[in-house]
Amino acid sequence: MISTEQLAGFRYVQDLQDQPAALAATLDSLEASPAPGDMADGIVRGRFRRVVLTGMGSSFHALGPLHLRLIESGIYSLLVETSELVHYLPALVAPDSLLVVVSQSGESVEVIRLLEAAAGTAPVVAVTNTPSSTLARESQFVVETRAGEEATVSTKTYVASLAALEWLGAVLTGAGVPPVLRVFRSACAGMTEYLSGWPAHVESLTRFLEGVDHIFLVGRGRSLASAGTGGLILKEAAHFPAEGMSSAAFRHGPLEMVRPGLLLCVFAGDLPTIGLNRRLAADVSRGGGKVAWIGNDADLDALRVGVSAVEALPLMEILPVQMISLVLAARAGREPGAFVRLAKVTTIE
Amino acid sequence: MISTEQLAGFRYVQDLQDQPAALAATLDSLEASPAPGDMADGIVRGRFRRVVLTGMGSSFHALGPLHLRLIESGIYSLLVETSELVHYLPALVAPDSLLVVVSQSGESVEVIRLLEAAAGTAPVVAVTNTPSSTLARESQFVVETRAGEEATVSTKTYVASLAALEWLGAVLTGAGVPPVLRVFRSACAGMTEYLSGWPAHVESLTRFLEGVDHIFLVGRGRSLASAGTGGLILKEAAHFPAEGMSSAAFRHGPLEMVRPGLLLCVFAGDLPTIGLNRRLAADVSRGGGKVAWIGNDADLDALRVGVSAVEALPLMEILPVQMISLVLAARAGREPGAFVRLAKVTTIE
Repeated sequence: MISTEQLAGFRYVQDLQDQPAALAATLDSLEASPAPGDMADGIVRGRFRRVVLTGMGSSFHALGPLHLRLIESGIYSLLVETSELVHYLPALVAPDSLLVVVSQSGESVEVIRLLEAAAGTAPVVAVTNTPSSTLARESQFVVETRAGEEATVSTKTYVASLAALEWLGAVLTGAGVPPVLRVFRSACAGMTEYLSGWPAHVESLTRFLEGVDHIFLVGRGRSLASAGTGGLILKEAAHFPAEGMSSAAFRHGPLEMVRPGLLLCVFAGDLPTIGLNRRLAADVSRGGGKVAWIGNDADLDALRVGVSAVEALPLMEILPVQMISLVLAARAGREPGAFVRLAKVTTIE
Repeated sequence: MISTEQLAGFRYVQDLQDQPAALAATLDSLEASPAPGDMADGIVRGRFRRVVLTGMGSSFHALGPLHLRLIESGIYSLLVETSELVHYLPALVAPDSLLVVVSQSGESVEVIRLLEAAAGTAPVVAVTNTPSSTLARESQFVVETRAGEEATVSTKTYVASLAALEWLGAVLTGAGVPPVLRVFRSACAGMTEYLSGWPAHVESLTRFLEGVDHIFLVGRGRSLASAGTGGLILKEAAHFPAEGMSSAAFRHGPLEMVRPGLLLCVFAGDLPTIGLNRRLAADVSRGGGKVAWIGNDADLDALRVGVSAVEALPLMEILPVQMISLVLAARAGREPGAFVRLAKVTTIE
């Protein structure tokens, strides 16, 4: 068991605490950034038949909310893992596709392959934390995330990407940018407040997670980004069995797994479905599973996140999962977020 | 530990053995079935702006290969869980959308909600095993799977859906139907041969799986259907921690989880990426994880599946996973595929 004092010295934990500052820097940059006007025009005038959203890992999950927003605006959007796009959907890398590529490093192997295929063919909008990267260099438009350097697991770059992608969504759909920035500024303050209590959160979650040996994370709509990324960071940063999926998918099979020892993290989400999520939480509790209800009205401080607008849901929801990753790594006597097998940049396909 | 003799008496095991016969019945029905000519015409003539593929659980995963085929043919296809479609993407339920809805029972709660929204708005092609269902009744065109009655976990209806959806793909893209049917007839024979050895497969896998406590299943392209459905049936039929994802996604994070006790099931797949999958398998072995290589050239009889065409990949690949589900349930002293918490039809959202 690693103590809270020891945790405070690890780079992953410092990255977690730096998230609000990273997000604020990204927002400043976005506020001053020119909009990719010709890209938005290309959508309106029909130059682009479709927008293809692509990334790997948490960069892929971060694209979920933009996918919803584009489709709701009547834009043909496709969300595809970069590896699948390159090898199994090359028809989408075409002059009438606008590619939106998210990669922190701008150097992961799938991105390089995609850029080779897209060169001179499909225009690319890059969302990256590395303005000197191959991705930034080879793209027609670059949205910089300015999250600063990140030690291992995607944390600062993830929240910064969420903001950059909401900004891009406002630009591509012709919605106003200022309201989006306001929502994110307010989320910044909320993140700072939540994270200021991190040692207490870790302490209360240490008790809460006693006996837990398997985690599912579920939500709907924009919270699918949290479910996917949450499942990923628990595996990556804590080496803990955890899987994210939609709340409805959990009812279609995995519900069979409910027993003591299983924890279901439920992202409360927004009005259209909060009642459905609540019923699932109740059913799992009744079945003897443990439930972490993550939302405005959570019982535990460590699970309570104040969200004032749907765009900010994924930003706030990921924080309690990060706290859980600290607890589970510490419990296993492992430095959270320290890679044993991975490099920060994935260079093998 | 449940013996092979005991296993033979369970309904799930009988369903597994009945798969080739179910598939053959579906193929006979498809051969005699009229094609939904006006639907295909609607795509060609631009009446439909998009095809929306939707289902839940294994019905959702079964749609993956059709999604690839439609996009490669230049058709705007979207693959969306029915729950998300209803609550978060209602803009897609529109007169210029052709909805392809897969549901074994034709009665699950999300399907009923979708039909309410689609009534008089968006035409529906149903793929269902229940011709008397609400889904069949409310659809403009019905593809019957004729897989017979199924006790619990989706097995017969899954392989029958894969066939029905490849047939539908051939029809909607204007490709010839007979070659698809030939491929599937040949797979039928291969399935029969594989399944005839099921007690030996269970025996050899019982030794092979010793010490395994967590499973990932990975593949690419059409094999993503196997990874998703495989992860689902191991959870559902054996209550075992198992998650499916793309081979590339596994490198972007979950690779950190590799240790003795972890099994990676790798679906070899087809030529464009078999080499990449092989390298991943080698890296995981070197890292101390266990690998089940599922393909034409597997070491173990129980993992060797003869595939002569890519369309048949998901049909054959799921069989070894079903065998693994038997072993893991038997090892835990549990009747495989017997639901404790679920009903066959999901009636709660």
